[in-house]
Amino acid sequence: MTLVYQKIAIVVAGGSGQRMGTSIPKQFLELHGKPVLQHTLTAFSQAYGDMKIVLVLPEAHRAYAEKVIRLFDHFPLMKVVNGGDTRFQSVKNGLAEVTAPSVVFVHDGVRPLVSGDLIRRCHDGALQFGSAVPAIDLKDSIREVHADGNTAADRSRFRIIQTPQTFLSNILLPAFDLPYDPLFTDEATVVERLGHKVHLVEGEERNLKITRPEDLVVAEALMGEQA
Amino acid sequence: MTLVYQKIAIVVAGGSGQRMGTSIPKQFLELHGKPVLQHTLTAFSQAYGDMKIVLVLPEAHRAYAEKVIRLFDHFPLMKVVNGGDTRFQSVKNGLAEVTAPSVVFVHDGVRPLVSGDLIRRCHDGALQFGSAVPAIDLKDSIREVHADGNTAADRSRFRIIQTPQTFLSNILLPAFDLPYDPLFTDEATVVERLGHKVHLVEGEERNLKITRPEDLVVAEALMGEQA
Repeated sequence: MTLVYQKIAIVVAGGSGQRMGTSIPKQFLELHGKPVLQHTLTAFSQAYGDMKIVLVLPEAHRAYAEKVIRLFDHFPLMKVVNGGDTRFQSVKNGLAEVTAPSVVFVHDGVRPLVSGDLIRRCHDGALQFGSAVPAIDLKDSIREVHADGNTAADRSRFRIIQTPQTFLSNILLPAFDLPYDPLFTDEATVVERLGHKVHLVEGEERNLKITRPEDLVVAEALMGEQA
Repeated sequence: MTLVYQKIAIVVAGGSGQRMGTSIPKQFLELHGKPVLQHTLTAFSQAYGDMKIVLVLPEAHRAYAEKVIRLFDHFPLMKVVNGGDTRFQSVKNGLAEVTAPSVVFVHDGVRPLVSGDLIRRCHDGALQFGSAVPAIDLKDSIREVHADGNTAADRSRFRIIQTPQTFLSNILLPAFDLPYDPLFTDEATVVERLGHKVHLVEGEERNLKITRPEDLVVAEALMGEQA
């Protein structure tokens, strides 16, 4: 019998926005006339008609976020939960909403340019391999830093990791029962700790993470190009 | 006696432009109404009044480039030399113009957003340490790829390298007398082969390399923000 998997996107909208030099958390800044986060949520809801969205918000931003969340009333499948002190805890709070076998996408709220194609590539990869993590090549040379200087490193040995980091729930849920470790910088690291191999899929250059003011300018330009 | 160093920028405008999906080499594409390369050359000539510029152009593009070069007639200190088959050979051709003790900046022609501050930081770093190579932090997680999969890697161990890679001529010239090695992917690698340590200075996020059409869109946006 074929197991039917639900589709659940855990969109982590943490971050205090302090790096942006503005008091507005960066996921609520305007991009092409709409909050960054609205673009992100729209991308997931449009990728699949049956996509359920769990939005993880810092409690401190909850009051501020309410008016933005109201804009998302046309996402009937959206649930909002509180963030934690760490990325790990925030994702874990979101995972509490996963109660049936699912393909779980964990995505940064500040990556609004994710495409439907990438979301579907991650979905299909996770079904086939248990995990699907988007990766792109390094464009520039890198050097490795040591205590006593730095040396050339071969960039082709490495790949840059994006989100949505996507997993079958029967892999992701047990991994998040592990005790927290500061080395858990993303979901792939957590899953790897349980001995699972991580499957990479091709990411997208334009799927950038908005963390600084110039990133918003770049995102604006890339969206304009698409339109 | 204080040695007086000349300042020489070797601007490498190689590349066939094939990755841009256009027949115009990418260094001649328009950015804010002027060829990319003109922005690059202007940045160097404005950073120091006594900056000498050696422009390395592929011979195949020379005829096409002439009309662009004519625009640069207001750079009295500019000399044009032919490129070689490799980056190493192109830089070596440019270095033939270095005949007195100099601070030599080797810069990608397709990095038009380099700032005067960065050029001066590289100059001062090279005077103090013999070399100055701009580096920025990796923003995203990385994973290391092996024959049998991939594993988490600590991005804080690595830095992304930009240009101008800047050296005192008494270090750079002997290094480029070495026989060519395909591992010479940038100038730092060549200098390192002679046993020199490479000194890193803080680079700039906006100092991007234009290699794909979307990079031009991003550069356009970043220049507009500055204006």
